[in-house]
Amino acid sequence: MASQELIRKLEDTIENIPDFPIPGIQFKDISPVFLDSKLYEEVIADLAAVSKGKVDAVCGIESRGYLFGIAIAVALEIPFILIRKAGKLPPPVISEQYDLEYGSAVIETRQGQIRPGQRILIHDDLLATGGTTEAAAKLVEKQGATVAQFSFLIGLKDLKGEEKLKKFNAEVYHILEY
Amino acid sequence: MASQELIRKLEDTIENIPDFPIPGIQFKDISPVFLDSKLYEEVIADLAAVSKGKVDAVCGIESRGYLFGIAIAVALEIPFILIRKAGKLPPPVISEQYDLEYGSAVIETRQGQIRPGQRILIHDDLLATGGTTEAAAKLVEKQGATVAQFSFLIGLKDLKGEEKLKKFNAEVYHILEY
Repeated sequence: MASQELIRKLEDTIENIPDFPIPGIQFKDISPVFLDSKLYEEVIADLAAVSKGKVDAVCGIESRGYLFGIAIAVALEIPFILIRKAGKLPPPVISEQYDLEYGSAVIETRQGQIRPGQRILIHDDLLATGGTTEAAAKLVEKQGATVAQFSFLIGLKDLKGEEKLKKFNAEVYHILEY
Repeated sequence: MASQELIRKLEDTIENIPDFPIPGIQFKDISPVFLDSKLYEEVIADLAAVSKGKVDAVCGIESRGYLFGIAIAVALEIPFILIRKAGKLPPPVISEQYDLEYGSAVIETRQGQIRPGQRILIHDDLLATGGTTEAAAKLVEKQGATVAQFSFLIGLKDLKGEEKLKKFNAEVYHILEY
């Protein structure tokens, strides 16, 4: 859906940092996108257009998922629901645990903010292995809602995150693919 | 600057959670504000109006400072700079260490995103003791820029954060005070 011009501008703006956070990984630093408010608005217009009429609420994953997620929700005039790391939201919360390479992590939403039957957009800046996103989707389904879409600024195809999300039968959209 | 109507709507929306995260603390949960896109837009209109013409860039403190901060910057058509916890931004970064009740923490910006001479708005959702905000202001000054304003959704007056910020000679604004 994104124009070739938007894709080219983003590719020119996002910085590739070799060997961060560990040797062999090429990190995509999206922070320069936020320095350019016009470019940011073009990204939001694209992400909002993809979800318009298809979702009832947006769930954004802490913390970079907040940067685009809140503006998608505002553009669509629908609720934005914070998905946070464990212990940051006050009780009552709904939690989902998931495995990391070493150990595990827990994400949470406040009880009652996701409503049964809602069609949810799960948004994050980047789809890598998909572990956190999968946990977010389970958290949504656990509350009687449906994951209607996943959207990302960037998808990293070698890490096969999209395969992990197939079981949710939801559209997966990213503006850029590396 | 905020209207009495906006203040009343926010007071009705923000949830007071007793004894979180520890006994004796009354937590202000702002997450319901993001469920109401119209109320969110009213908050942004107020925060942007307060800073219009007075600042050249907005620094937002991870992670809740992103939720309003990015939209203030977009409304003012100026850059938004991420202040992140240590280790999350790739090198080169500029860092500032500060003391916590037990131990210490480090916050960072990417080198070159704050420019010498810029008038900076430091934004976060809540001003409590002011420790993180003070570190953010030092991080700004270390890069040759000036803190022109601090803005928050909420200021907690009993915790005296505002006194800690006096030395920066910058305007301190919050919509709500508890």
